[in-house]
Amino acid sequence: MKKLLVLTAFITGLSVQAQTDETATIKSIYTHALTKQQGYEWLRKLTGMGGRLAGSDEATEAVKAFQKVADSLGFTTQLQEVTVPHWVRGPKEAAYYTLNGQRYEVAVRALGGSIATPAEGLTAEVVEITSFEQLDTMTDELEGRIAFYNMPMDPAFINTFFAYGSAVKQRYVGALEASKKGAVGVVARSLSSSINPYPHTGSMTYAGADQQIPACAISTLHAEQLSRDLKANPKLEFFMQMAPRELDSVVSYNLVAEIKGSEKPEEVIVIGGHIDSWDLGTGAHDDGAGCMHSLDAVWLLKELDLLPKRTLRVVFFMNEEFGLNGAKVYAQRSKEEGIDHVIAMESDAGGFTPRGISMVAPDSIITRIRKLRDYLEPYGVHEFSETGAGADISQLKSDDLVMIGLRPDSHRYFEVHHSSQDVLAQVNARELELGSATLAALIYLLDKYDIVAL
Amino acid sequence: MKKLLVLTAFITGLSVQAQTDETATIKSIYTHALTKQQGYEWLRKLTGMGGRLAGSDEATEAVKAFQKVADSLGFTTQLQEVTVPHWVRGPKEAAYYTLNGQRYEVAVRALGGSIATPAEGLTAEVVEITSFEQLDTMTDELEGRIAFYNMPMDPAFINTFFAYGSAVKQRYVGALEASKKGAVGVVARSLSSSINPYPHTGSMTYAGADQQIPACAISTLHAEQLSRDLKANPKLEFFMQMAPRELDSVVSYNLVAEIKGSEKPEEVIVIGGHIDSWDLGTGAHDDGAGCMHSLDAVWLLKELDLLPKRTLRVVFFMNEEFGLNGAKVYAQRSKEEGIDHVIAMESDAGGFTPRGISMVAPDSIITRIRKLRDYLEPYGVHEFSETGAGADISQLKSDDLVMIGLRPDSHRYFEVHHSSQDVLAQVNARELELGSATLAALIYLLDKYDIVAL
Repeated sequence: MKKLLVLTAFITGLSVQAQTDETATIKSIYTHALTKQQGYEWLRKLTGMGGRLAGSDEATEAVKAFQKVADSLGFTTQLQEVTVPHWVRGPKEAAYYTLNGQRYEVAVRALGGSIATPAEGLTAEVVEITSFEQLDTMTDELEGRIAFYNMPMDPAFINTFFAYGSAVKQRYVGALEASKKGAVGVVARSLSSSINPYPHTGSMTYAGADQQIPACAISTLHAEQLSRDLKANPKLEFFMQMAPRELDSVVSYNLVAEIKGSEKPEEVIVIGGHIDSWDLGTGAHDDGAGCMHSLDAVWLLKELDLLPKRTLRVVFFMNEEFGLNGAKVYAQRSKEEGIDHVIAMESDAGGFTPRGISMVAPDSIITRIRKLRDYLEPYGVHEFSETGAGADISQLKSDDLVMIGLRPDSHRYFEVHHSSQDVLAQVNARELELGSATLAALIYLLDKYDIVAL
Repeated sequence: MKKLLVLTAFITGLSVQAQTDETATIKSIYTHALTKQQGYEWLRKLTGMGGRLAGSDEATEAVKAFQKVADSLGFTTQLQEVTVPHWVRGPKEAAYYTLNGQRYEVAVRALGGSIATPAEGLTAEVVEITSFEQLDTMTDELEGRIAFYNMPMDPAFINTFFAYGSAVKQRYVGALEASKKGAVGVVARSLSSSINPYPHTGSMTYAGADQQIPACAISTLHAEQLSRDLKANPKLEFFMQMAPRELDSVVSYNLVAEIKGSEKPEEVIVIGGHIDSWDLGTGAHDDGAGCMHSLDAVWLLKELDLLPKRTLRVVFFMNEEFGLNGAKVYAQRSKEEGIDHVIAMESDAGGFTPRGISMVAPDSIITRIRKLRDYLEPYGVHEFSETGAGADISQLKSDDLVMIGLRPDSHRYFEVHHSSQDVLAQVNARELELGSATLAALIYLLDKYDIVAL
């Protein structure tokens, strides 16, 4: 390790003494995070407020509660108005089918944005679809029937986000595509990396559809069961009932909490996550963790007297899940106000042990960031990739913005994501805090070495 | 990555073609593990049999059940007789204290090997001890009192095993040391990395004590509470009651399951974990995961037609927790039979996402193993250290034995370790399987490149 440090010092033109000091500083950040566990305490408070679907009172109350927290910490805060859709789930959803005279209840939840079934429910035969190629070849097979998308996340991906990306189409455009073939409803396999009884919801679109049809997620456990039972009786009738409604859009808020830079206040480092969540759980990982990472990272720097030369902004974006409204408003307002963002960081991949970061930046900056890896390796942060940064900060994209996303261990994430299981009990305090410390250490190093585009 | 592979090929004298083939082979190992999840299914079977305290029927039944599994897979199996102590917990333990007229129940469990309290329980004042230096300065303060060791695991360690190592003394010799000062009982803070209501048991010793006194673990939650309440009333009386007994030692077994090598059958690669566990949970992480990793790794190689040139032995060691009896018997029998172990691998650090390996071997071998890292990095296995290998295989230590321990992510491990929470629900199938695949890939590479001492 010593050899590596000397090598890095040589490359970056720093003295070994400086390296040693920074190594101690970074150690102090991690130690403070693990000892105080402030981010975890905040996450307890946030998740205690319930699910935070955009448009809900809970979402807006959470923003306001954390404005108070940021105020008490000495930030200058503002709430930015964001108009968001207001879809509500309505009464509990139900689904079942009958096979050999026996009725099997299955766990379903409406996809976000879905219309309701008729009040008395919808009953139809089911057609299983295991690929979009298969769907393409269909002529009238779906006419008057329910399309059952059953495309598991591929377990062979090591990073489960890639498996999710490969499977998400069935949820997002499943209803749109099935309606073109005459289907009357959609049951989409939950995007979960394990077989479990919890439906995982998420957004869908009707954009361009002639006919809107109701769509729900079915748990992976019940998707497997339904698939087996369809082989026994391809004519079995499926009943689904759900009553979501789209209400008038409402005004909610982004929280922007700022600490002015001491030497370069006009240059802004923004760090954030999204405060809205799905309604089934309490958004502990998605994206309570990311919001708390962001606030905690700045808190750590402040506590340890390591605030950067540049202005720091923590942003809790409103409504990432249902259309990125908050991110768009933030980008627009920043443009109008002439805010000069030089670095944007996001955490929206859960609160598990950080494994690395992903970056979007000019090559020369990427090279400089990679040289910081020696500082983070002792904390298990090894993987520096160029696979995007984050949905909310992507709205700020420009040629001279350095964008960084935190990349935690992904193996458990899609077991809880968008389901009733995304709750505080699934978050480990040490793992969460290592994420906060990693972001704090990165801000400290990027600012200190002026790793920004010129 | 390509550049790295070419570099490695140059160093090791291999062709780039060979590297590409091996990269594909290793990918196939990970894919097969993640897709089939065979190790996880075996772990379900194993944990379904209950806790497996050495000397219990459950421990012996588990060995026999997995002998049948190994037989069915085509291994040549044997059960090696191991005489093990037979300590039983007895009826449920109880503890409480009274403060301001209110009675507070606290969660305790006898430490492994502890004697019982008097049948009617033991009541005495409590003295909190926060360091062994403090204990050293005590004269008659502990006389007739209960010693309450309250030394938290240091959260600043990134690898929690080091925090455990620094704190374990209070559990292991707490009673021994307190008895020298006249204490009548011991309450030791659970070795847990979080504040939770579950006592974590573990082994202790009376070796050399003039006086044996009963010792229990108290949950971290209740240790914190007791510490606060002792400040309010240093004279509060603590009641503890437990009735463990030491029965006659019994005969149990190591399971040794072997597949003869095709080209170098006289050279043996041994891989194992310990089949015994504490009784409070079902030993899912400690060390069900390690046993299943070992069997699964060999199963993967067999399934994919990648069995090594050398003989492979899977060993489920009996009684790591209470004195390493199985490991000692295995080492002794191997010596008698002239077994030539060239590589010994162990998994006894949980079933979480593998982060790296730790090695004990001659420097030249360490250098060669480090060169294999490029193959494992795509699977998140980065950290190659020289911090020991494993307790069971350490009994085989010799100058020409390459010893390797799997090093999974450690952040959650000590929340469940030795407690009622060490159950299957705490194990994630993907994370477990990555461990099996990592061990399988290592066996494949070590054997293929003859990375053994000459």
